[in-house]
Amino acid sequence: MQAEIITIGDEILIGQVVDTNSAFIAKALNKIGVSVFQITSVQDDKSHILKSLKEAEDNADIIIITGGLGPTKDDITKTTIAEYFDDVLVQDQSVLENIESLWEKYIKQSLSQVNIDQALVPSKAKVLMNHFGSAPGMWLEKDGKVFVSLPGVPFEMRNLISNAVIPKLQEQFELPFILHKTLLVYGIGESKLAERIEAFEENLPEFIKLAYLPSLGKVRLRLSAKGTDKDSIVAEMDNQLKILAPLIKDVFVGFGEEDSLEAIIGKQLTILGKTLATAESCTGGKIAESITANSGASAYFKGSVVSYATEAKIEVLNIDEQLIEEYSVVSTQVAKAMAANVQKLFNTDYAIATTGNAGPTKGDSNVEVGTVCIAIATPSEVYAKEFQMGNHRIKVINKTVNKALEILQKEIFKN
Amino acid sequence: MQAEIITIGDEILIGQVVDTNSAFIAKALNKIGVSVFQITSVQDDKSHILKSLKEAEDNADIIIITGGLGPTKDDITKTTIAEYFDDVLVQDQSVLENIESLWEKYIKQSLSQVNIDQALVPSKAKVLMNHFGSAPGMWLEKDGKVFVSLPGVPFEMRNLISNAVIPKLQEQFELPFILHKTLLVYGIGESKLAERIEAFEENLPEFIKLAYLPSLGKVRLRLSAKGTDKDSIVAEMDNQLKILAPLIKDVFVGFGEEDSLEAIIGKQLTILGKTLATAESCTGGKIAESITANSGASAYFKGSVVSYATEAKIEVLNIDEQLIEEYSVVSTQVAKAMAANVQKLFNTDYAIATTGNAGPTKGDSNVEVGTVCIAIATPSEVYAKEFQMGNHRIKVINKTVNKALEILQKEIFKN
Repeated sequence: MQAEIITIGDEILIGQVVDTNSAFIAKALNKIGVSVFQITSVQDDKSHILKSLKEAEDNADIIIITGGLGPTKDDITKTTIAEYFDDVLVQDQSVLENIESLWEKYIKQSLSQVNIDQALVPSKAKVLMNHFGSAPGMWLEKDGKVFVSLPGVPFEMRNLISNAVIPKLQEQFELPFILHKTLLVYGIGESKLAERIEAFEENLPEFIKLAYLPSLGKVRLRLSAKGTDKDSIVAEMDNQLKILAPLIKDVFVGFGEEDSLEAIIGKQLTILGKTLATAESCTGGKIAESITANSGASAYFKGSVVSYATEAKIEVLNIDEQLIEEYSVVSTQVAKAMAANVQKLFNTDYAIATTGNAGPTKGDSNVEVGTVCIAIATPSEVYAKEFQMGNHRIKVINKTVNKALEILQKEIFKN
Repeated sequence: MQAEIITIGDEILIGQVVDTNSAFIAKALNKIGVSVFQITSVQDDKSHILKSLKEAEDNADIIIITGGLGPTKDDITKTTIAEYFDDVLVQDQSVLENIESLWEKYIKQSLSQVNIDQALVPSKAKVLMNHFGSAPGMWLEKDGKVFVSLPGVPFEMRNLISNAVIPKLQEQFELPFILHKTLLVYGIGESKLAERIEAFEENLPEFIKLAYLPSLGKVRLRLSAKGTDKDSIVAEMDNQLKILAPLIKDVFVGFGEEDSLEAIIGKQLTILGKTLATAESCTGGKIAESITANSGASAYFKGSVVSYATEAKIEVLNIDEQLIEEYSVVSTQVAKAMAANVQKLFNTDYAIATTGNAGPTKGDSNVEVGTVCIAIATPSEVYAKEFQMGNHRIKVINKTVNKALEILQKEIFKN
């Protein structure tokens, strides 16, 4: 079963808006065993929309269209869809009532004609009611193929996909069983990892595919199995994970499609009942920010001192001025003192400290741009390492955050 | 002049990755007067890539391809591109040297065969050197049309687009003269702003277009003029800016397409020779992180205390326990004390403090989720305001960061 996604809207083609809808839809479709053949972003233009509908129909069984349904755009997309289905637009009473009730509740103004016209739908369409906005979802069929048109507002689109489109597709089509397992791996590059598990990959059964999804400092490995016999798929996936596990033991940090390293750390600290603080210089608070982006962080995260200026290291973190003079502000010695002192200051079990030069020019320290020292204080020891993170400021910061989290993760999972 | 963007990669079609590259490329192309006809995401599959190249060639003069160039994917994309151009892959010595030097500097391991193979390029391609990664950019031409293949890693792709592709396109094609002026406006909604400058917009000459680019808490106004007579375009843009300026005087914070509010604040603090510290609770260090993302921040940013736990507010920031008990940890009183104390602690001219509940559950304070207090300490006063930022955790954090920066910007521009 194959799908295509078409997003309509000039705002995407001028680069004003990043199309996040397609990834959401693709993920939802993949989860029920529908693979996405192509994603196409087209202009608010009749002939372009017609052309893309035709091409999508040639390739796919399911065509999901988003966007082009706002009150100021309605005329193009809906009349074009009606034309494609050799249909006319008619007013749908239930949609009109939905718009009226939304207006009464939130807008508190009378309906204008453009709002009323949002209740126009192709006569052959089944309406998918949008309870969060005025543009309805529309379900159309043609020669056994399904076309779904959805509003482009992400929140409205997501609700319609999850609560209307996916259940209806599962009802209508005989879909395969699909199983994904995603493994998060830190501290090894994509190519090294590929080399290491080459034999594993080559010996995978036909119905299990392996994907490498790398991003800065980490790689997600995704195993996807597809078929009709659920039991044997589950068993074989289990079997393959057992083969894979020892190969990546030293770099594997957790399962999970969505889980970031911060989230994994947060869960583990919560389980252990342990606490954390950070002392950040070159990362400027980004480690603290990453950790507190997760809800529930207050259970384990006490706080941070961002000691950006050297004097802040001395006065707020009580780093010995002698130590800085002797070893320089970017040194493993100073990093260790920062970690130890912030651990004491916030009275925590663990502390992470960073000091480095993110560039572009040399700062208070004379070290090379990109030199970073990361220290960790655990309940039993304090140690630090020096790294060279390159010469691009934002990358140096991000790599340092990742590396610090990686070191922390390894320490807390020792328990 | 029309372009098409093709992104290659199963990770996009399974929804694992949001395609942010296309928006970046589309924006860069639009800026030099090249409009984007279509964006197409296709699978790591030979026949699919060939089909999309053919279709793009039919529609566009410039075809930008990203992705499909990682060490584990190389074989499909590059051989397919070579086939499309009836070409063979040859090893490029300069690319190999670049890979070797990157490995020597950062990886400190010997090259594997997959890394060496990244130096293979179609013999007809001009290499666009990727100084930040092993996959090279490739520039190919066919019947006056340009095809550019770029790595999918956003950072690497962006560097190649900005520093190689755009200059080369401008050199090769006779593009219209285009002038953009972007004005950053804070603290007014898009529709209110549109109402306020309606007459200005209506009176703009035909060749100057106005775009509203709203994002959380701010709106960018973009004036774009396009034509052949550079002098008259520059003069008329100047003239229109003089008409616009008094209309948005109270909400305008600066020019610049890319300049963030943090950058504007940084520039002003540098000019004034003033310093800044932050005390952050609900924002978890994100204000500090935003500020230190700008190079040169060490000139004016001393540091931050992220006092996430209530005890950290008491022990690290010396907030009176009585004050917290009397007013609650989320209160304008506590926010003011945080700002004043961190200003003292870091010995700065300005300090910003945040305390609030980002949710999803109520924390140490009993206030509603989304309640946030922001305080500012200036050289002459300390004041605070309470806000309601909604009930979505990440949105509450981001809105608070924006609002705090907005308050700070207003204060430092009083001078």
